[in-house]
Amino acid sequence: MEYHFSDRVLTLKPSAIREIFKYAADPSVISLSAGNPAPEAFPAREIAEISRDVLANRAVEALQYSITEGYAPLRTHLKEYMKSHHQVGRDFDDILITSGAQQVMDLVTKSLCNEGDVVICEAPSFIGSLNSFRSYNARLRGIPMESDGMNVELLEKALQEEPRAKFIYTIPNFQNPSGITMSLEKRRAVYELAKKYGVLILEDNPYGDLRISGEPLPCIKSFDEEGVVVYAGTFSKVISPGMRVGYAIAPSALLQKMVVCKQGEDVHTNIWSQIICDSFLTNYDFDAHLEHLREIYRKKSAVMLHEMEKEFTPYITWEPVTGGLFAWCTLPDKIDMLEFCKQAVLRKVCVVPGNTFLTDEKEPCQSFRINYSTPTDEQLVKGIDILGELVRDMMK
Amino acid sequence: MEYHFSDRVLTLKPSAIREIFKYAADPSVISLSAGNPAPEAFPAREIAEISRDVLANRAVEALQYSITEGYAPLRTHLKEYMKSHHQVGRDFDDILITSGAQQVMDLVTKSLCNEGDVVICEAPSFIGSLNSFRSYNARLRGIPMESDGMNVELLEKALQEEPRAKFIYTIPNFQNPSGITMSLEKRRAVYELAKKYGVLILEDNPYGDLRISGEPLPCIKSFDEEGVVVYAGTFSKVISPGMRVGYAIAPSALLQKMVVCKQGEDVHTNIWSQIICDSFLTNYDFDAHLEHLREIYRKKSAVMLHEMEKEFTPYITWEPVTGGLFAWCTLPDKIDMLEFCKQAVLRKVCVVPGNTFLTDEKEPCQSFRINYSTPTDEQLVKGIDILGELVRDMMK
Repeated sequence: MEYHFSDRVLTLKPSAIREIFKYAADPSVISLSAGNPAPEAFPAREIAEISRDVLANRAVEALQYSITEGYAPLRTHLKEYMKSHHQVGRDFDDILITSGAQQVMDLVTKSLCNEGDVVICEAPSFIGSLNSFRSYNARLRGIPMESDGMNVELLEKALQEEPRAKFIYTIPNFQNPSGITMSLEKRRAVYELAKKYGVLILEDNPYGDLRISGEPLPCIKSFDEEGVVVYAGTFSKVISPGMRVGYAIAPSALLQKMVVCKQGEDVHTNIWSQIICDSFLTNYDFDAHLEHLREIYRKKSAVMLHEMEKEFTPYITWEPVTGGLFAWCTLPDKIDMLEFCKQAVLRKVCVVPGNTFLTDEKEPCQSFRINYSTPTDEQLVKGIDILGELVRDMMK
Repeated sequence: MEYHFSDRVLTLKPSAIREIFKYAADPSVISLSAGNPAPEAFPAREIAEISRDVLANRAVEALQYSITEGYAPLRTHLKEYMKSHHQVGRDFDDILITSGAQQVMDLVTKSLCNEGDVVICEAPSFIGSLNSFRSYNARLRGIPMESDGMNVELLEKALQEEPRAKFIYTIPNFQNPSGITMSLEKRRAVYELAKKYGVLILEDNPYGDLRISGEPLPCIKSFDEEGVVVYAGTFSKVISPGMRVGYAIAPSALLQKMVVCKQGEDVHTNIWSQIICDSFLTNYDFDAHLEHLREIYRKKSAVMLHEMEKEFTPYITWEPVTGGLFAWCTLPDKIDMLEFCKQAVLRKVCVVPGNTFLTDEKEPCQSFRINYSTPTDEQLVKGIDILGELVRDMMK
């Protein structure tokens, strides 16, 4: 049998990170390449407690079919929480529970983009989202990142040049992979530009609660009085990613289209996990839990930064780490970045080559991404030591 | 803000069943419109037991990110089970765990169909799948159902006339909505035609284990020595639909494309539920559980059939019920089917109008679908009594 695939999957490749992630399953390899939360960050005891109660007292509710929009109490409580804590959501907005925030990227693209339509994204940006956009044959236009977020002049130029632009994809807090946080001024500027050009914003905020220093900035969605912004949230980094519970807060007209698309994709999101998230959000001290997570990551990032100072200086530089799960490191021009990443693997340390995160992987890139949430402190120190030794060897 | 949606969602409507399902949430309405397993069919005690063990002893495994292909032990055990019990799977096949079988429909279409490509389906067929195909702008070509499965002559005619046909979608066992089971001869004929015309088969088998009378027939996939068939399985009807665990067994070349598409849709399926399914399949007596389910549905269908004999005769006829969750009932020509369904709602009984399941909803249809798994015996009897009274009133 000969197979004839759709055009959209002909060029689609498996995520390089997921591929590296498989390689990193070798226990002798130190993986600094994942994006997994620290295992000690999971509220495992509380989840077991809620699960026991649910399966003992209302098992049928957790096991039966449900509606596509999501578990009603979770939708209500999450709406209230996002409104009171982040000023996210207006009367014209509604909420949809999704199978991880990844599904928000998929559903927004599916609802908005015809083949050849344009998605404007930060460059670099999260590969999983870029692949989701690509899977609908959307064309990606990258806007270079600066230390305070995407270059706003180039964003406006892109909006002028791309009449088929459908939305601007941004991760304003501790961006994956760069770690960069968009300044308040740029948040407002991006919002105004989107409004001016009639293009939506897809604001992806998986790491916003994981700030380890400085003051929180308002979400772009908190400015939204005109229905310009789709907000993508997730419990993956603050409760558990294995549960696959995310959500979209978006203007109802768009959300209704997303609901119909979701119906055809997976009917609804796992109910047990929606009940767990709802109960953890409402019956436990969620804010104290978030503070506990920040403390875990504050400590882990300190271990990493201390070791990088010691081992990377003066050859490798990095963006300031103020939250999230990643450090974005840049090699001197003299070193071939891909060769460095390959050599690192041979020395049993995995990092992610920075070009993976570009809209065009072939563009020059001197950076690589380190994750500090998944490895133990010992692995982190040893991994950075090996990378430091490698860069010194390669500079010889 | 003005929204410009993609062409594919402009004509997409929410599933009529899901909409009726919302209406049916009114507790005073007897819903014969759902497709939910009987609540007493859930192995709730065993699920609670496994869940307790998993969250106590290997919580991190259940809560952390995992790989897109699915939980490795479940993939192994399911492959073995499907091979030994159903002769499904060859060396060229592989298995992907999905978020319900619905996601198999989505991923197969996404991997195979460009816009305007053709999906050949039984007419009537499962609306959720049809909507999934439609969501990629595939064109549907319906093949009329006969009492032993689709009309094979018309299938060959369609294959001759549709050079852009990508796959044939079939539910061979206790089809939704018609309840019809495809004969062995037709299974072989459909397989041979698919091979002859180089078109794949998507075999959806959610109800195969729920046979209440007669002898099981082999899956079409069990004939497959050439990589022509994608098999879609699910735990929704035999463990729990709220968990959203399905699977595809398909030629590796196609499955790899589906994996990449799944990565962009939801990264992976909820891990807790994959572990539950694996443990229930391997550490409990799964075959005894299936026999227990069949006993439940044997009893419920007997209640329904007894009442239909009494109330529907001679006006309403129905297809023989030998398994699955549905009865397909046909009204006399004198009665307007849509009007009948509307009147039924006014008398507080919900059924699904048959035209919902056609590739073209505007085609004439005298049938409606009754579900007998979800209502209690009392509701079933009362609902059928009301429908019987209604048909007699309308025949006056």
